[in-house]
Amino acid sequence: MGGGISTPQMAAAVCNAGGLGSLGSNYDLPQKIAMEIALVRSACSAPFCVNLFIPSPAPERVVPPEPMLKILARFHSELGLSPPTLPAEPAFTFEQQMEVVIEHRVPVFSFTMGLLERRYLDALHARSSLVIGTATTLAEARALEDSGVDAIVLQGTEAGAHRGTFLPAADTHVGLFALLPQVIERVKVPVIASGGIMNGAGILAAMKLGADAVQMGTAFLLTHESGAAEVYKQAVLGAAPEDTQFTRVFSGREARGIRNRFIDEIEASSVEIPHFPLQNSLTRPLRRYAAEHHLPEFLSLWSGQNGSLGRRMGAGELVALLVKEAGLED
Amino acid sequence: MGGGISTPQMAAAVCNAGGLGSLGSNYDLPQKIAMEIALVRSACSAPFCVNLFIPSPAPERVVPPEPMLKILARFHSELGLSPPTLPAEPAFTFEQQMEVVIEHRVPVFSFTMGLLERRYLDALHARSSLVIGTATTLAEARALEDSGVDAIVLQGTEAGAHRGTFLPAADTHVGLFALLPQVIERVKVPVIASGGIMNGAGILAAMKLGADAVQMGTAFLLTHESGAAEVYKQAVLGAAPEDTQFTRVFSGREARGIRNRFIDEIEASSVEIPHFPLQNSLTRPLRRYAAEHHLPEFLSLWSGQNGSLGRRMGAGELVALLVKEAGLED
Repeated sequence: MGGGISTPQMAAAVCNAGGLGSLGSNYDLPQKIAMEIALVRSACSAPFCVNLFIPSPAPERVVPPEPMLKILARFHSELGLSPPTLPAEPAFTFEQQMEVVIEHRVPVFSFTMGLLERRYLDALHARSSLVIGTATTLAEARALEDSGVDAIVLQGTEAGAHRGTFLPAADTHVGLFALLPQVIERVKVPVIASGGIMNGAGILAAMKLGADAVQMGTAFLLTHESGAAEVYKQAVLGAAPEDTQFTRVFSGREARGIRNRFIDEIEASSVEIPHFPLQNSLTRPLRRYAAEHHLPEFLSLWSGQNGSLGRRMGAGELVALLVKEAGLED
Repeated sequence: MGGGISTPQMAAAVCNAGGLGSLGSNYDLPQKIAMEIALVRSACSAPFCVNLFIPSPAPERVVPPEPMLKILARFHSELGLSPPTLPAEPAFTFEQQMEVVIEHRVPVFSFTMGLLERRYLDALHARSSLVIGTATTLAEARALEDSGVDAIVLQGTEAGAHRGTFLPAADTHVGLFALLPQVIERVKVPVIASGGIMNGAGILAAMKLGADAVQMGTAFLLTHESGAAEVYKQAVLGAAPEDTQFTRVFSGREARGIRNRFIDEIEASSVEIPHFPLQNSLTRPLRRYAAEHHLPEFLSLWSGQNGSLGRRMGAGELVALLVKEAGLED
């Protein structure tokens, strides 16, 4: 949960309650990542996690951004914003982010959308960091295990926001009911179930299917410590299971969010969508304005398929409640 | 599981072992349905079920079948079959099928792809038949409950073969992890989980999420009593979770099956696909030939996302094993 949704306060509260809190640091400057790691460390002494995206390979053909800028200009004009422009070159590289993660000896490092280069994995292991990859298919889980990760997050189709997919397949949208048992039968490292898990019943169901642990995003998006806008939280709580969809319109990469006017109009326009991360930069001013001005129709309302099961409370309280609901007290 | 996959022998074996065996009778002549009902009754005294598809509303625009016939002709020629032709008018109506179901007082009638007209529902209830509808979204579950059904099958995205979808939504492919708990919170009738459930662990996970019962298709496709071709069974057992996909190429309606040459080539051709049931009739000679000649590349290899968890045994044995695995013995 990058872009300010997860916070150091959230990560620390989760860790202090016995969970593994996580910083979604993908969009952050290396200096900011270092500062947030220090903030978590100052607020808790338990292990915590930092998550980054593996950079996507360059697309075979670069989509020219002008048609998209033209369409975005209409939304900008409607809201009284100055016209959208091409973003500046990124101010940092993945390598610089990884240097911070390695140097600061984060207890757990997790990643998504690819395999981690061997040199990073070795550097992390040399500093006793645990490394967790993300798979959406059996083939990806096998590739991650072969690459030497310590554990694998299995992301079911139910999961909100970006897909971790990095290998082609007939269908990379496998439900947890299928992904969990088939991967568990075939890999040896621990597996962490993610996608649509919101309460104790979900945790127990995932464990019945063989999961060693669960990862929860949308459930924590709704906590007090989350940086999500109030209109965003309300949209998540009010969504039916069929109200989210996969879309590339916000970021250029496939992600699950609640259907809204922005998705409908960009998809209806049939304009070709630039790739991640360019499209993400192009839509950022609009999304930022929408968050500040309570306009859910222009926000990327990332959510899993179970948003309506969410509860509004502190992140630490939620961890304690989940442990109780699942009967996992010591 | 229509088209000869489910058999009266399978239904009777399931019923005799304590399950609710089902006849997938959608493609069958009324006389055949009556005969198969008699066969089940002669082999077991327990309640059983008959399943039909609700006729789809006529499409807004009829897709001309000639381009599809041209492509199919290439496959026919490759296999030495005479060229495909337009099918004859259907030899029976849904109404005639329903007359058999009502007249023969089937203990349980289940349907998919729509709502059952009130007159049928009343006639079934007047004869003490239990009526079960199928939902893929919360909105469909609510519409079914309002229509007066006695129970609802919730079909997760994991499920094989045709989707039961009948109302538009942002995403009608909801994972069981999300569909089950949200529907159960909002409808009063019993819910039956379906999609990717293959063993005792799956049954227990569905029950943890609130299901009252489960419906299993792919698991029984692999039993000795199933009419599935041997190459079909082997393809299901060998498929990874990401090897199935949704496609309209075989029947004109969205269904989940294992990716093969027929799917790849028809989808790559970009030919417009006629609607169900016309496309289903157009591809039938090819599918029938492929089944008889062990050619999985031209078969509709319908399967849920968990095919590889299947076991080859008798249908009654499988029911007994499932009861044992799930710890549901009396």
